[in-house]
Amino acid sequence: MTVSREWQLVRRPRGWPVPEDFRLAEAEVREPRDGEVLVRNLVMSVDPYMRGRMNDAKSYAAPYQLDQPMYGGVVGVVEETRVDGVEVGTTVRHGLGWREWAVVPARQLEPVDPAADGVPVSAYLGVLGMPGLTAWVGLHDIAEVRPGETMFVSAASGAVGSIAGQLAKIAGLEVIGAAGNAEKVAWLRDELGFDAAFDYHDGDVTQLLERAAPKGIDTYFDNVGGDHLRAAIAVMNPFGRVAACGMISAYNESHPGPDNLFQIVGKKLTVRGFIVSDHAHREPVFRRHVSGLLRNGRLAFRETHRHGIESALDALLDVLRGGQHIGKMVVDLG
Amino acid sequence: MTVSREWQLVRRPRGWPVPEDFRLAEAEVREPRDGEVLVRNLVMSVDPYMRGRMNDAKSYAAPYQLDQPMYGGVVGVVEETRVDGVEVGTTVRHGLGWREWAVVPARQLEPVDPAADGVPVSAYLGVLGMPGLTAWVGLHDIAEVRPGETMFVSAASGAVGSIAGQLAKIAGLEVIGAAGNAEKVAWLRDELGFDAAFDYHDGDVTQLLERAAPKGIDTYFDNVGGDHLRAAIAVMNPFGRVAACGMISAYNESHPGPDNLFQIVGKKLTVRGFIVSDHAHREPVFRRHVSGLLRNGRLAFRETHRHGIESALDALLDVLRGGQHIGKMVVDLG
Repeated sequence: MTVSREWQLVRRPRGWPVPEDFRLAEAEVREPRDGEVLVRNLVMSVDPYMRGRMNDAKSYAAPYQLDQPMYGGVVGVVEETRVDGVEVGTTVRHGLGWREWAVVPARQLEPVDPAADGVPVSAYLGVLGMPGLTAWVGLHDIAEVRPGETMFVSAASGAVGSIAGQLAKIAGLEVIGAAGNAEKVAWLRDELGFDAAFDYHDGDVTQLLERAAPKGIDTYFDNVGGDHLRAAIAVMNPFGRVAACGMISAYNESHPGPDNLFQIVGKKLTVRGFIVSDHAHREPVFRRHVSGLLRNGRLAFRETHRHGIESALDALLDVLRGGQHIGKMVVDLG
Repeated sequence: MTVSREWQLVRRPRGWPVPEDFRLAEAEVREPRDGEVLVRNLVMSVDPYMRGRMNDAKSYAAPYQLDQPMYGGVVGVVEETRVDGVEVGTTVRHGLGWREWAVVPARQLEPVDPAADGVPVSAYLGVLGMPGLTAWVGLHDIAEVRPGETMFVSAASGAVGSIAGQLAKIAGLEVIGAAGNAEKVAWLRDELGFDAAFDYHDGDVTQLLERAAPKGIDTYFDNVGGDHLRAAIAVMNPFGRVAACGMISAYNESHPGPDNLFQIVGKKLTVRGFIVSDHAHREPVFRRHVSGLLRNGRLAFRETHRHGIESALDALLDVLRGGQHIGKMVVDLG
């Protein structure tokens, strides 16, 4: 009998989640039935969108059920199989994270090949996973960036922002990034090749962006909302576009919006929200493009690894707070 | 020697304009030169966008110069001509309003034919003018409305909103309007055929809209911003669109924006600002469509007329305040 630890939501957070809203429980793992496999999870994802699942409100993300295991992206190894064509030992990505073992139906399994791609398994939760696809779709399908333009990206050292910024450079744009400390800013500027980067704590974000973008910006890849969105609208050139990918500043606290929204009219701006799951059909093109860039060493990525399922909640809370980590946050379970 | 009265801006308003910011001056009218005509202005337009021209800031509308005549849409009669093909007596629309007489270069003249269209000359400043084209472009090119959808329009009894709402009905939509008093609401519901309408003073705009739109809304035609924009975002269905035509709530005072902008992401909304002058190429299609609707009695319009150039400033201030007038505000000069 296998026992698996799993995180459950026991109370819906009001505002910032606190440890008392969650429980690390133990559950017996049942045998897989026909059409299912048993997966030993190796590495799981923690992502800002998971905050939305903790609310009961209608949202693009179905809410977590109370006293049930939470879920999310994860990569693991098939240990028992009752699915034709899926062998024991196969590395798979699926959606039943936040637990050490999972019984997964065949249609949810995505086999991955880290050896062929030359990446660690965790990359399928980051640069080759949902955050990477989010960056790619936001850039090419939502903002529809063009060479020669200037793009601003917030949370630029994060899982999505760091890929969006690099992909924009590869697409021929000038890229300006905002991040939360000097080490992150140095990484953007010195290693990822951003044309400019600043620490948003260093002053008024609008003034910081004005200084970094003397010619204005044409696109803003928004992961933050709030004062970053205000700055982008203020500095944006006519017909500029905002790809609204996330507004993490608003996930836990309600804030008034920017006071300069009327400029959306005068500057003829487009603000377009998107959720990556509506764009799953772009996965093959994305995968071909980005795995090629990785093989050619044209795209860098960083990950922050926490260890053990007991650390997963803190990892998520750090992501929501915008902590000191750089790149994609994952939790190793093995 | 003809003397013309004209309004000049003498000081840039801070916040709400006050009469001391303006002067009604007299100027001698010079003779037209080759390629110019002398026009006796009959009826002039006052529009919310003119507030933007009073600022020195970079904007889509070039700023009014201090101690110079203001300008804007106007219809008049040619009294002297030095342009081949333009006869004395021709009714023309041009851009040198805020004055009784104007010397106008040929390329700025648009001859109009109120007898053929069966409308008063003032209609070329309203339903067949810039506000009508704004409504048409916002609906068909920006919001890209489709039959069966539900649209919310703010300032719905105004020059743009009343046309946008009726055109949406004609396009097969359900239409909900917000306006500022019971008479306006009754006009929308009883005469223009809106499916629902409410007075935004009657409570929280979000709650009023929720009640009026139990199935949610798919498009919002925004003339107001602020609490109306908040309500629209709250009630909008996934993939909804905002045609951001104006945000009159922000023209004279700075306000924080809505506190629910993060829903732009989760609901995958698009907010698109536009300025009608970028869409002048649509004028022929618009004119054909709307003049046909007018001839067939399918489109109603109302105008509020003020009399004498001395009343023009108050007329504009009333428009900015959202006064008791219904439909397009114009000032008769003749």
